[in-house]
Amino acid sequence: MTSSDIAAIILAAGKGTRMKSSLHKVLHPVAGRPMLDHVMAAVASLDPVRQVVVVGNGREQVETAVKGRADTVVQEPQLGTGHAVQQAEAALKDFIGDVLILYGDVPLTSAETLRRMIDARRRPGADGQCPALVVLGFRPADTLAYGRLKLASDGSLDAIVEHKDASEDERRITLCNSGIMAVDGRLLFDFLGKLTNNNANGEYYLTDIVAIARARGLSAAVIETDETEVVGVNARGELAMVEAIYQRAARARAMADGATLIAPETVFFSYDTKLGRDVVVEPNVVFGPGVTVGDDVTIHAFSHLEGATVAAGAEVGPYARLRPGADLRAGAKVGNFVEIKKSVLEEGAKVNHLTYIGDARVGSRANVGAGTITCNYDGFNKFKTEIGAGAFIGSNSSLVAPVKIGDGAIIGAGSVVTKDVNTDSLAVTRAEQREIGGWAAKFRARNKKK
Amino acid sequence: MTSSDIAAIILAAGKGTRMKSSLHKVLHPVAGRPMLDHVMAAVASLDPVRQVVVVGNGREQVETAVKGRADTVVQEPQLGTGHAVQQAEAALKDFIGDVLILYGDVPLTSAETLRRMIDARRRPGADGQCPALVVLGFRPADTLAYGRLKLASDGSLDAIVEHKDASEDERRITLCNSGIMAVDGRLLFDFLGKLTNNNANGEYYLTDIVAIARARGLSAAVIETDETEVVGVNARGELAMVEAIYQRAARARAMADGATLIAPETVFFSYDTKLGRDVVVEPNVVFGPGVTVGDDVTIHAFSHLEGATVAAGAEVGPYARLRPGADLRAGAKVGNFVEIKKSVLEEGAKVNHLTYIGDARVGSRANVGAGTITCNYDGFNKFKTEIGAGAFIGSNSSLVAPVKIGDGAIIGAGSVVTKDVNTDSLAVTRAEQREIGGWAAKFRARNKKK
Amino acid sequence: MTSSDIAAIILAAGKGTRMKSSLHKVLHPVAGRPMLDHVMAAVASLDPVRQVVVVGNGREQVETAVKGRADTVVQEPQLGTGHAVQQAEAALKDFIGDVLILYGDVPLTSAETLRRMIDARRRPGADGQCPALVVLGFRPADTLAYGRLKLASDGSLDAIVEHKDASEDERRITLCNSGIMAVDGRLLFDFLGKLTNNNANGEYYLTDIVAIARARGLSAAVIETDETEVVGVNARGELAMVEAIYQRAARARAMADGATLIAPETVFFSYDTKLGRDVVVEPNVVFGPGVTVGDDVTIHAFSHLEGATVAAGAEVGPYARLRPGADLRAGAKVGNFVEIKKSVLEEGAKVNHLTYIGDARVGSRANVGAGTITCNYDGFNKFKTEIGAGAFIGSNSSLVAPVKIGDGAIIGAGSVVTKDVNTDSLAVTRAEQREIGGWAAKFRARNKKK
Repeated sequence: MTSSDIAAIILAAGKGTRMKSSLHKVLHPVAGRPMLDHVMAAVASLDPVRQVVVVGNGREQVETAVKGRADTVVQEPQLGTGHAVQQAEAALKDFIGDVLILYGDVPLTSAETLRRMIDARRRPGADGQCPALVVLGFRPADTLAYGRLKLASDGSLDAIVEHKDASEDERRITLCNSGIMAVDGRLLFDFLGKLTNNNANGEYYLTDIVAIARARGLSAAVIETDETEVVGVNARGELAMVEAIYQRAARARAMADGATLIAPETVFFSYDTKLGRDVVVEPNVVFGPGVTVGDDVTIHAFSHLEGATVAAGAEVGPYARLRPGADLRAGAKVGNFVEIKKSVLEEGAKVNHLTYIGDARVGSRANVGAGTITCNYDGFNKFKTEIGAGAFIGSNSSLVAPVKIGDGAIIGAGSVVTKDVNTDSLAVTRAEQREIGGWAAKFRARNKKK
Repeated sequence: MTSSDIAAIILAAGKGTRMKSSLHKVLHPVAGRPMLDHVMAAVASLDPVRQVVVVGNGREQVETAVKGRADTVVQEPQLGTGHAVQQAEAALKDFIGDVLILYGDVPLTSAETLRRMIDARRRPGADGQCPALVVLGFRPADTLAYGRLKLASDGSLDAIVEHKDASEDERRITLCNSGIMAVDGRLLFDFLGKLTNNNANGEYYLTDIVAIARARGLSAAVIETDETEVVGVNARGELAMVEAIYQRAARARAMADGATLIAPETVFFSYDTKLGRDVVVEPNVVFGPGVTVGDDVTIHAFSHLEGATVAAGAEVGPYARLRPGADLRAGAKVGNFVEIKKSVLEEGAKVNHLTYIGDARVGSRANVGAGTITCNYDGFNKFKTEIGAGAFIGSNSSLVAPVKIGDGAIIGAGSVVTKDVNTDSLAVTRAEQREIGGWAAKFRARNKKK
Repeated sequence: MTSSDIAAIILAAGKGTRMKSSLHKVLHPVAGRPMLDHVMAAVASLDPVRQVVVVGNGREQVETAVKGRADTVVQEPQLGTGHAVQQAEAALKDFIGDVLILYGDVPLTSAETLRRMIDARRRPGADGQCPALVVLGFRPADTLAYGRLKLASDGSLDAIVEHKDASEDERRITLCNSGIMAVDGRLLFDFLGKLTNNNANGEYYLTDIVAIARARGLSAAVIETDETEVVGVNARGELAMVEAIYQRAARARAMADGATLIAPETVFFSYDTKLGRDVVVEPNVVFGPGVTVGDDVTIHAFSHLEGATVAAGAEVGPYARLRPGADLRAGAKVGNFVEIKKSVLEEGAKVNHLTYIGDARVGSRANVGAGTITCNYDGFNKFKTEIGAGAFIGSNSSLVAPVKIGDGAIIGAGSVVTKDVNTDSLAVTRAEQREIGGWAAKFRARNKKK
């Protein structure tokens, strides 16, 4: 399979009314990535020459989203799936390879399944001829009103029978049509040109090209996949279902690769989460996009990671929030109610409690006390805080950036550090402790009288 | 259906021993509201003239709970369901409409189902006569030992057969008795007067009124509903099951109405939660009672909201706790490890990290730095904090209420503000930064020697 | 059953390759305790004279783990389950009671089931003879490739038929072999001495002792248990499954005993969690090992408890982290984003927000303000903080340990307390509040120009 011989047409012109959303349906995310991107990523792993997204309703959103990553063509008005695919004709002029036809709201079809479809398209049948097209079929638990795939005795695809046109016998067929196809690019637009809209809805249906191909004496084939790979999303309930399918698979993968998920059903991955071996993930952990976790890391309960890198042997949480740019080096530790943003924690650095570290570098084995805040923002700009190796930041300190704390320096508890502190110095800002004897007793007496 | 013709009798005299609780069974909450209140709310939407709660065991708790909202009558001793309903006779003297008979521990019957029962009670049958009573039936996955509803050939209710008295054939009936009824109020207490306790338990059973009505040549009808609407609670496991049924429905409703729940099974609603369109709720969010969320709001993971109003375009969490009286205006933002109580955040105000805001008003576009605390309590009273529009509160500040920070004012990090600050001023309380060179090195050396 | 007549041999020599872990398989925890310890604990409740763990692969880890609690014998090389059990012969020399044979990776068999096995071993059959051994059987939903237990007409065990050797008829048997046995200790090693390795894998199979016993005219018996009690763990997915089974049972137990779990599926127990009556556990609570909760306690959502004691009427969370040594007395309250470590909160003490309390004693009815930090660590040692009864600690205070705050004392907000404070005193460390008029306006103007 070479890059020059695959193209994809992805349909994304539908209204998505049932989503009740001002966000275009295909841009709703699954595992932290728009559905359309899931489809495009599966295609991309086949190294296609071109991906063409057919847009229509809400096209501006989709056009903006795929800009520079795919071509778009407009279907206006929307006259059916066959008509939608037809709009890509100019975009695929002179293309003679295989065309995958996919749907922006069917996000879970795997690259491996697409590859099998392409392979089947190119595999000669008993008659020595390659099938003109391959349809992706599935056997759902409940066949509902899906179109059925009727096979010939040689296992090739004889016809697609719409549910409403199907006989009793045909309805007993369990193999259903997903609508996803791989078609010989030299024939596709020919076929489409023969479509008619003599049906109840007055639409041009893509599925009709099977009959057109068969009528020309060409064969068609079927590749089967699991129902979970072809679930379409028309409403938020289905979106949640697709998310659940994705998460279930991601959890199983993580465990098979050597991570312990104590309660897998409470761990949420993004499409690109990477976990090392002997990572332990406690219950209730959310991974946003862009997280990489090294070996032997424990992520304690109630942690939230996004755009973060956690090196081997680090410890995270419980209740740790790692935001984009959090970079925990080997053996670093981030404890409870701590937020780390765009900051490096060098080897063995510890930030254990109730702390905000932003735009900072915390040196190796430095210890940041509870309640410490890096004051990185003045309302207009962000500034950097540097904490030296082995430094000790007393609790409830405020480090007003830009500021550097030298290696091995100690900051007294409750200090507001505005000037750099030298290596091995003690720095402190503190008013004298004053005590007024008996004041509290009087205060209480006064208040109780009221 | 007019208000003058419906009344309800709700049985709540049972012991609830299996709950192992000092809280009365019917007061255990589901979705943040006592079970009994769920029943009363369903009835209330039919605009009844009266609701009568039959109390007995632990009556004081129930009487206190429904005070001013329903009448109570005492069943003492407890001699069966029929006997329980009889206690309401005086309370419904002269009432000639329809009486709904419900159970305080069967909380999920919908108003719509009750309405269908009343409608059926008033619909004349083939004989032109309205049924004397209507029984709510259901078809459980497992019929267990439920009483069976035996229908006549015309679809009317012929008899209720207790499981232990049922023949083989009768046990094959899948339609079961929920115990919930709508009865002609002119006949109900007549029927009840005919009950006997000639049975193994020596109790007066409500269900026997079906036979009494039929013996008089009156007809009875059945309305069916889903099993989930008639689940009764006798133990905490069943309470959890009822909660799960409620939550499942609430999640589906939220999604159908245009909210995205990334992981619906991890989102917990209260009975009165209101979500706008294009609200995104990340995994692990808990809504306590009294929450309203506007359109286009994202509630990030691990957030907990209760008695809070969140306007359109606001952003909440992760790890945000909004307590009663939290009022976030358009575009306001509450970030991680932040607690807001009885406070208004005006348009675009930001409280991003590790902060407690209580009894305060935060002006529009004000920015409250990490670690800020409004010191609203002196051990006796609560005081207000006012933060002006566009003000900037430096990190780790303590605002000692009552105190006003003027519009556009800036508070230096780590300050303890006890006096009002003027518009556009800088205010700061800060001791000088002192540094003792080499102190930290000596301190370490000393400690290592030990 | 006396202590002198039961011993156990626990097999733990396997490689566990599919775990992809550097931690030995049997040491992976379930509900906070290594699987091997679950097995040993079940055995321990039968008061055995000896537990012998057969180690092999990764033996050092297992030996260290069980040191002082069980004997270990080495199986090297590993030539099958029968061979493994044989290694315990010397360790059980002169032992004439019953030997339980168990597996370190089958952690959920209950003590009660083991007791039933021992009882069955000692119960004479129709022939007056006790069975030589008892096999634990189960009826799985899917019999897969499990060995089948073939019963004689008298209900005794006739033979174990391996799946691959089973006839069509035999495969229809639903009673399967768990591998767990109780064997007459006077016969066990005799039987094992007769084992051969004439099979495809060249291994000595423990199950063959059934045929050996039967060939000698001895009888064998079967005890059945639920499938959930004999699930074995070979991969992390199965570990998660076993954890789920454990949790499901623990939740049901807690509810049956009188605790409300609003969403049981989101509450995670450890093997030793103890909850009182009328405890309410909100969604998303994690109990690590060593937690005891008294009656009438509410644990709010998102709380994490470990090694903590919570007395009657206390309130915890939401977002409370109780670490080992947290000891909340009656009516104490720990609120959101609060961490308590190795500290006592006396009756009615309140620590409501954003606080770290470590190595401290908080007196009765004391109130610790938001943002308070006990500075218990200087980089080398930990020191104690004592807060007197009725004391009031102003928000954002730092208490630098060792330090004592007297009864009824008040600490001003934002103070750094380094010296002891007397009873009923007010103590404060605070610089004067300075204000520079118009500074903020100029600062903004300057920044906007940029």
